[in-house]
Amino acid sequence: MSGFRVPRRDQQFLVHQLFDFATQYQQFRNREVPSIELIDAILDESAKFSEQVLYPLNASGDQQGCRLEDGRVIAPDGFAEAYQKYIEGGWASLPGEPEYGGQGLPYSLNLLCTEMRTTANHAWDMYPGLSHGAISALQAHGSDEQKALYLSKLLSGHWTGTMCLTEPHAGSDVGMLRTRAEPEADGSYRISGTKIFISAGEHDLAENIVHLVLARLPDAPPGTKGVSLFIVPRHLPDSDGNPGPRNAVHCGRLENKMGIHGNATCELHFEGATGYMVGAPNKGMRAMFTMMNTARIAVGVQGMGNAEAAYQQALAYARERLQMRSLTGPKNPDGPADPILVHPDVRRMLLWQKAFIEGSRALAYYAALQGDIAEFGASEDVRATAQARVDFLTPIVKGFLTEAGLVSVNHAVQVFGGHGFIRETGVEQYVRDCRITLIYEGTTQIQGLDLLGRKTLLDQGRTLKGFAEDLHKLAVDCRETHSDYADQLNALSRDWTALTDFLGERALQNPDEAGAAAVDFLMFSGYALLAYFWVQMSIRAGELLQQTPDDKFLQGKQATAAFYMSRMLPQAEAHRQAILAGGDTLLASADAAFEDD
Amino acid sequence: MSGFRVPRRDQQFLVHQLFDFATQYQQFRNREVPSIELIDAILDESAKFSEQVLYPLNASGDQQGCRLEDGRVIAPDGFAEAYQKYIEGGWASLPGEPEYGGQGLPYSLNLLCTEMRTTANHAWDMYPGLSHGAISALQAHGSDEQKALYLSKLLSGHWTGTMCLTEPHAGSDVGMLRTRAEPEADGSYRISGTKIFISAGEHDLAENIVHLVLARLPDAPPGTKGVSLFIVPRHLPDSDGNPGPRNAVHCGRLENKMGIHGNATCELHFEGATGYMVGAPNKGMRAMFTMMNTARIAVGVQGMGNAEAAYQQALAYARERLQMRSLTGPKNPDGPADPILVHPDVRRMLLWQKAFIEGSRALAYYAALQGDIAEFGASEDVRATAQARVDFLTPIVKGFLTEAGLVSVNHAVQVFGGHGFIRETGVEQYVRDCRITLIYEGTTQIQGLDLLGRKTLLDQGRTLKGFAEDLHKLAVDCRETHSDYADQLNALSRDWTALTDFLGERALQNPDEAGAAAVDFLMFSGYALLAYFWVQMSIRAGELLQQTPDDKFLQGKQATAAFYMSRMLPQAEAHRQAILAGGDTLLASADAAFEDD
Repeated sequence: MSGFRVPRRDQQFLVHQLFDFATQYQQFRNREVPSIELIDAILDESAKFSEQVLYPLNASGDQQGCRLEDGRVIAPDGFAEAYQKYIEGGWASLPGEPEYGGQGLPYSLNLLCTEMRTTANHAWDMYPGLSHGAISALQAHGSDEQKALYLSKLLSGHWTGTMCLTEPHAGSDVGMLRTRAEPEADGSYRISGTKIFISAGEHDLAENIVHLVLARLPDAPPGTKGVSLFIVPRHLPDSDGNPGPRNAVHCGRLENKMGIHGNATCELHFEGATGYMVGAPNKGMRAMFTMMNTARIAVGVQGMGNAEAAYQQALAYARERLQMRSLTGPKNPDGPADPILVHPDVRRMLLWQKAFIEGSRALAYYAALQGDIAEFGASEDVRATAQARVDFLTPIVKGFLTEAGLVSVNHAVQVFGGHGFIRETGVEQYVRDCRITLIYEGTTQIQGLDLLGRKTLLDQGRTLKGFAEDLHKLAVDCRETHSDYADQLNALSRDWTALTDFLGERALQNPDEAGAAAVDFLMFSGYALLAYFWVQMSIRAGELLQQTPDDKFLQGKQATAAFYMSRMLPQAEAHRQAILAGGDTLLASADAAFEDD
Repeated sequence: MSGFRVPRRDQQFLVHQLFDFATQYQQFRNREVPSIELIDAILDESAKFSEQVLYPLNASGDQQGCRLEDGRVIAPDGFAEAYQKYIEGGWASLPGEPEYGGQGLPYSLNLLCTEMRTTANHAWDMYPGLSHGAISALQAHGSDEQKALYLSKLLSGHWTGTMCLTEPHAGSDVGMLRTRAEPEADGSYRISGTKIFISAGEHDLAENIVHLVLARLPDAPPGTKGVSLFIVPRHLPDSDGNPGPRNAVHCGRLENKMGIHGNATCELHFEGATGYMVGAPNKGMRAMFTMMNTARIAVGVQGMGNAEAAYQQALAYARERLQMRSLTGPKNPDGPADPILVHPDVRRMLLWQKAFIEGSRALAYYAALQGDIAEFGASEDVRATAQARVDFLTPIVKGFLTEAGLVSVNHAVQVFGGHGFIRETGVEQYVRDCRITLIYEGTTQIQGLDLLGRKTLLDQGRTLKGFAEDLHKLAVDCRETHSDYADQLNALSRDWTALTDFLGERALQNPDEAGAAAVDFLMFSGYALLAYFWVQMSIRAGELLQQTPDDKFLQGKQATAAFYMSRMLPQAEAHRQAILAGGDTLLASADAAFEDD
């Protein structure tokens, strides 16, 4: 297994040369404005932590997994020690409110650190990662007292958080949950019920765990309108805010999973546990979406991170593995064969991975920046536009980066041939780990419905048309220098708008038509946005190459853009044609299809 | 985990109602001609064996895996007992030469039995499965003495076979292998070297194992022209043909793999082992291709089999799992929610699986029938045409059925949501097991080069144009009744031919252009052929529905055809556009793309 190196050059290209984070940050209100130097220092330090502390625990964590002993969960060797270093490094508090011990730095900067950690060790990063959703929910909906007590502990990293939504009979259908919350005289609640698939639900990394639990009050209306959110700490805080008596919540089992073995996926039993309501009664779904939206971008980045780590291994292998000669004559005449990198389809698979990863990285950073602007932008208009944009992009980042991420990690395995199927090679772990990203925090199917229904059709297509207009503007800008790209961008802009109008009409007649198109629409949108960012990156690389014409990184950007536009973008057309074919063949008329005798 | 049922109705539809195997068989020379009743009796018996004996060992075999103890390999519990039943049932000898104890039945009939077994238990079926390659090689290239001794043991099932090709530094590049064969005075050879990734290379299911080993004679020319094939039995046969003394071959390690845990993947050390040459010196590659071609269709069927088993589980789950209401109003008003089968994208994923599986089944059966005709057809012309057809189809069956099979099993996992990621659910095993099918017996990349280079361009496109002509003829035939399908078939026929001409010209200028297009060309060909079979199946179902208008199976065929043609076939267009974009962006010009700093 080769090592792992954070792609710092690509990150810097995006942060400084494409998006210019530092200048963007200067316009923020209520936020620390880091200098370019500080940004780089933070990212360098984060890279070191990810490469040197987390990556070495990735394969061993997968092999060892977690153990449940007498209700205690023991994470793989080294995980707890790495978490101590995480606390000491101050990584937990990076984006938090300074009032509660946070460093007040932008979310977009934090996302890069998250990206490095999850790329180095997906399973490990889920322990601190789940805290972010809890932090967001408490920042947005917690009382001052709750913030003072819980938020500060989460931001210091001494406590971690969870999101307790799923029950055996209630997955995507959150409204079906049955966990009960009965009010006590002292204002607290007694929480009873069983939650499943709780990531980092129990572990030995931190002294306390703050469960954020969706439950129903006794008089709650049915469905999602009767769901409230509660804080249920594993240990009830004592008067000094330190972990006190054990609360009535315990881990009944650990799931045996396909991947992310290093993370504890728990079944949690709440048996009259003491809880405290967050926000208003029956308004738990709002708080859940606050948690979810934070988490969804992070999950998209997990998909991309698995792809990045697997790509690095595949590229290194393709350079060293010698098999057969190039069809155009030996490229390594002194060796017994040529490196497999010379074989066109090996290059195709590697370029596919690279084009997906780097395009997705641009998309994810852009989305995170919109998230910052939505909160800290200078004017209400600027904030509202950015909010609409990040809302629109979130299901695409979650859905597209995980779906294409799975294709990408499979390409990496394929580059290894038979060796890719062997566990000690290390690359197959990424397929197993990546697989969950298409499912948790809302499946691709849920993301598709969110994008097409809530974020596009309910929005009358306004935000989408803003993006389509951006593609068109970029086409106009590059018409002289990149006429092929301009034509492609114009076609995408037109098609994206036309698909939206088409689906708006169909969905009016039959709402299932939206459901039948949603995932294809999400994938089309992902490919269209990656084209938008690839053309921008190619243009920017061209500008920079005027100063440094031999810079291979920048030449590589142009070459990869060309590959993306000619060899990957045709996928968008397949999704478009599938959408235009409509939903008839998979809706009611097809019931017979599932009868096979 | 739900049970597994062999899709007998679909098999019967293809065998009797679409391809009419029985009538085809009547034209064979030198072959037993089974009646319709015998065909059905064999298939029913095979279904029973697969469902009742093999399937119950699938999940337990995955969990338990194989053990290596003192050089002996112990397969999972129940595997050896199941193998005894396989021998007793006479399954090993079904298609073999009667002269050596075979039943002389057609290969295509045997393929259905193989399909059932591998669908029920992929890892188990690889123990007898590897024998087929050895049987083919011995039938084609073995001496009469070798046949009498080894072939009869393989056909009875008492001994199993292996294919020992790969070495640590020689995978796809077979010509780089170093295993040595030194002639002895008695006409035997001493074989020395290390082979890796040998499936069923050591196990406790049979009393002896016949390794077919590629090795080099001392004076052999370099590369593939210096490779010879040897029989190396684990136990040297005594004068009665029973297993005698242990030969100098042993298993040094078992690989720890992503999937197919129930099958032993061995590193074999040959330390001056006694071997016997098969065929002529330095002609081992011919014999290898004989083994490979048999195996490649079987591996394609493994991809499809994993998809079938996973689909059955996903469909059952989608019927029983209740989550959310249909967007068009409750479909299960008395229950707490609707079955997820009502949600359009769940239906899309299920129909995708069904359309892939049933279309691929038709393709695989057709290919197997061509294989029979190539050997037993009544005239030389008939045999030659069929040989060209099966040669052309083999890389497509191998490549397309495994690549799309992996997509299919991932759809099945996705239908299960979070539960799909849990090992005890059982469906994630199919993703892990299926993954190897894209790699072994020649990766998808090797299949692409075989299809485009050897089977298409070297053939001057003759065979391909025969298929394209078939598509066109079908279009003419169905113009009146299915004008949409006719248009689509005509376009595919034109595009397929045009792509071939396009690639022939490009490859003349630069052979790497063929490599750059090969996998997209393979995938396009797969989608085109599935369209051809789906239209045929739809038409045939329509004819049969005139007698039984309420037959849901037949209605389902029509509905699934409609889904395939409108929602899956657009993928062909994406592959076509990628091919037409040429290879420039991934060949030499893109070297910089892989430099990232």
